[in-house]
Amino acid sequence: MPRFWKPEEVAPRTLAQGVTAKIASGEKLMFSLVTLAPNAVVPTHSHPHEQMGMMVSGTMEFTIDGETRVLSGNEMYLVPGGIPHAAKAGPGGAVALDAFSPPREEYR
Amino acid sequence: MPRFWKPEEVAPRTLAQGVTAKIASGEKLMFSLVTLAPNAVVPTHSHPHEQMGMMVSGTMEFTIDGETRVLSGNEMYLVPGGIPHAAKAGPGGAVALDAFSPPREEYR
Repeated sequence: MPRFWKPEEVAPRTLAQGVTAKIASGEKLMFSLVTLAPNAVVPTHSHPHEQMGMMVSGTMEFTIDGETRVLSGNEMYLVPGGIPHAAKAGPGGAVALDAFSPPREEYR
Repeated sequence: MPRFWKPEEVAPRTLAQGVTAKIASGEKLMFSLVTLAPNAVVPTHSHPHEQMGMMVSGTMEFTIDGETRVLSGNEMYLVPGGIPHAAKAGPGGAVALDAFSPPREEYR
């Protein structure tokens, strides 16, 4: 199992139109460094895995269970397992780091 | 349990001399947004919790089980549970996001 990752050496995965992610994983944790093009949308979805995220750059509307916030800086969020959530990048796009526990097997 | 955190509204905890952290936590995940002053050191330690981290800004020497890398950009790292690790900020300091699973009870 690798212990160090350079994002420029990780192949991006496409999560949605204009949304790509670079994945790194341990046994209990998975990181997903997500890049959203301007105004790109992650439609409402849910998964049993707990998710926490932090903004890295840009701005993003993030909706958890119907509550929407506009996030910027290094703001952080928590999505409990099974709770519907969605995102929409601002006009300048966004980068966010998502963490999942347990890791999402479909992203390994 | 909060679902959103602004770092500027979270009280910093001191982890070591010149090293402070802002903590946010779920049930399975804990985030620790760590700020290291120039050349600040986190001495070698270990904990049973799995840890993954990502550089946010600056540079940092990070040592896992005797292997040292100089990290910058958004480089990521994995510390399996029980493995000794240490950090030393570069001359310009560093900010990194650490994630733990399970959460570290002593940081709640």
